[in-house]
Amino acid sequence: MNFELLYSDRIKQLSPSPIRELLKIAVKPGIISLAGGNPSPDTFPVKELKDCFLKVLEKDWKRILQYSPTEGNTDLIEIIKQYSRNQGINCETENILITSGSQQGMDLVCKVLLNPGDEVIVELPSYPGSIHTLKSYQAKLTGVPVDQEGIDIDILEDILKDRQKTGILPKFIYLIPTFQNPSGVTLTETRRNSIIKLAEKYGILIVEDDPYNALRYDGENIKPIKALDRNENVIYMSSFSKTFCPGVRVAWVVGPKDLIRKMVIGKQGADLHTSSLNQAIVAEYCRNNLMENHLKDILSYYKEKRDIMLESIERHFKNVATWTKPQGGFFVWMSLDKKENTDELFSKAVEKGVIYVPGSSFCVDGSNKNSMRLSFATVSNENIKKGIQLLSEIFSL
Amino acid sequence: MNFELLYSDRIKQLSPSPIRELLKIAVKPGIISLAGGNPSPDTFPVKELKDCFLKVLEKDWKRILQYSPTEGNTDLIEIIKQYSRNQGINCETENILITSGSQQGMDLVCKVLLNPGDEVIVELPSYPGSIHTLKSYQAKLTGVPVDQEGIDIDILEDILKDRQKTGILPKFIYLIPTFQNPSGVTLTETRRNSIIKLAEKYGILIVEDDPYNALRYDGENIKPIKALDRNENVIYMSSFSKTFCPGVRVAWVVGPKDLIRKMVIGKQGADLHTSSLNQAIVAEYCRNNLMENHLKDILSYYKEKRDIMLESIERHFKNVATWTKPQGGFFVWMSLDKKENTDELFSKAVEKGVIYVPGSSFCVDGSNKNSMRLSFATVSNENIKKGIQLLSEIFSL
Repeated sequence: MNFELLYSDRIKQLSPSPIRELLKIAVKPGIISLAGGNPSPDTFPVKELKDCFLKVLEKDWKRILQYSPTEGNTDLIEIIKQYSRNQGINCETENILITSGSQQGMDLVCKVLLNPGDEVIVELPSYPGSIHTLKSYQAKLTGVPVDQEGIDIDILEDILKDRQKTGILPKFIYLIPTFQNPSGVTLTETRRNSIIKLAEKYGILIVEDDPYNALRYDGENIKPIKALDRNENVIYMSSFSKTFCPGVRVAWVVGPKDLIRKMVIGKQGADLHTSSLNQAIVAEYCRNNLMENHLKDILSYYKEKRDIMLESIERHFKNVATWTKPQGGFFVWMSLDKKENTDELFSKAVEKGVIYVPGSSFCVDGSNKNSMRLSFATVSNENIKKGIQLLSEIFSL
Repeated sequence: MNFELLYSDRIKQLSPSPIRELLKIAVKPGIISLAGGNPSPDTFPVKELKDCFLKVLEKDWKRILQYSPTEGNTDLIEIIKQYSRNQGINCETENILITSGSQQGMDLVCKVLLNPGDEVIVELPSYPGSIHTLKSYQAKLTGVPVDQEGIDIDILEDILKDRQKTGILPKFIYLIPTFQNPSGVTLTETRRNSIIKLAEKYGILIVEDDPYNALRYDGENIKPIKALDRNENVIYMSSFSKTFCPGVRVAWVVGPKDLIRKMVIGKQGADLHTSSLNQAIVAEYCRNNLMENHLKDILSYYKEKRDIMLESIERHFKNVATWTKPQGGFFVWMSLDKKENTDELFSKAVEKGVIYVPGSSFCVDGSNKNSMRLSFATVSNENIKKGIQLLSEIFSL
């Protein structure tokens, strides 16, 4: 069989995730990886997960091992509803859909909204997993730069103005406004207010991807854009992957009822429903109010790592680079003043025994070639210091 | 926001699963449901599942609660490889992909192969979940009737001949050849040989959906079509949903390496990977050789129910209907001789306190209006008898 003749247009233009491929190559013993995007297994609440599993299995095995509604576990939906309301998000049961990770949330948003060639605005830089999904729906991606305060509102409005003239607006703006992956930047409150006004003015949707929201190590809490939503302009996604564990694949979407209904129809064809067992475990965990104390533990765990990374960067890169100071999440974004190319230097880093993700991997226009994403989440304190030092030896050559 | 202006073409033409909607309406206390497609919770190996969970959590929690490779758990892939080879399927590790239920297998097959308007051949009747997925990729569906020996090979070849003249062949033939959902029919060995020859002759793919394969209650075992595959014409899908439990959402695909690679790329955008935890539980269950004895138990469990249903139908419908005699799976397909319309009579059945799924729900051309799918899997022996009797009271009016 000649499969090349059979493949769909969408799959022909897709490549494997560059980061996933890069990580496969770079896994050699003893290497210090500042490249991962994973949460630390040290933060997984193993004992509590076990207890919750045993409890739900005992009391409810007939239901939680069976097929279940596409919308999600009703207890978990109620928990998400309450949690969302506490975040200032106005929502009912019908606004919520449980998904198999936020990756699926993104997939269903695209399934429901995108025709091939539709334009979507993404941040420069942005999360490659979502870019991959957008490309799989043959979206035309337009990047808008992020600075220390988040996406550049002026450039964004210029684009919207321009598109309004042509009569064809982008289908949505995809944002990770809080502790952004990869930049670590948080969109300011002022800009959140501006962007929701833009969305209303131009009648455009915002897809707010917010997996790191609960991982704030310092600074004032800022409400999600969704909490400012008055006219159903915002689709909000978040996840238990970073606060509980990724292996259960449980996440959620809060959006306009009509759109959620369409996403349910899309999900019926995609995987019928998210694992009933895993949803029940997560619901039991939340119901027993275990999340609050757990979050305290993991916040102090990650805060220490972030501090060590920022101190190490300060020590080694003071006069040769600029970098972000994230108040939460997993990532620091560092840009080299002399414009060294981080793609080209990657193999040198591997030789030295340290890896990062080159900045261009996150940019739909291939920009930010002098930048890199550095994650502190899964690295020992000692190795964060050592890794940053090794990096400095490469880039000050 | 006016969402109607924003929705994609694919979602605009999709309706919610008719069966899922029908079952929502029809759930009232005391009703006997012969409509479900679920396995019986009585067959779920709860204790063993618990033991496997505890074991894998203890020895491997750092890995099984973390993100994991898109391809699937390597142990589970090896188990599937061995199992497939025992079925006569020639395969390597790279031929296998673990999916979040076979529904996702179907979704990824479509993602990789279908452009809007591409033709796919399906059985009349066929599984609505897959039809839903096919429609979500805007496939043009052509139905080929199933008789007591499976899909009609002559009609199928006529269609292929015709399409060959136009130069545009269907992208694939979607088949559930063993204990078909909904008809219960099994494609004979002779026809399996014919169909693989057709696939080779016309250079066309077959998607073999085989979730009920292990649930044979009597008769001789027949090899999957995939075991006859010489030229990479067959993509095989099966699942742990019916033999273990559906709540874990673990299934698999065996296909040509190049195509599996493309499906992996598609899955990266869809849900990153199937729950690492659930894959580990299933792998542990299989590794401990628990499946073999478990299957013996559930086969005798379901066989009794099938026998009771066939006896009851024989008693009540002898001279007014024809029906299939499935050697495995969950379903009997019954067609009323006087061509009563099972859609129209559905509300009467609900009144009587019994439900089925009308035949037209399974047919892309709306045919088989005088047929219905009857499932014995989740119904008590007493209620199978009572349900069939109640049905006979409606249809002999």
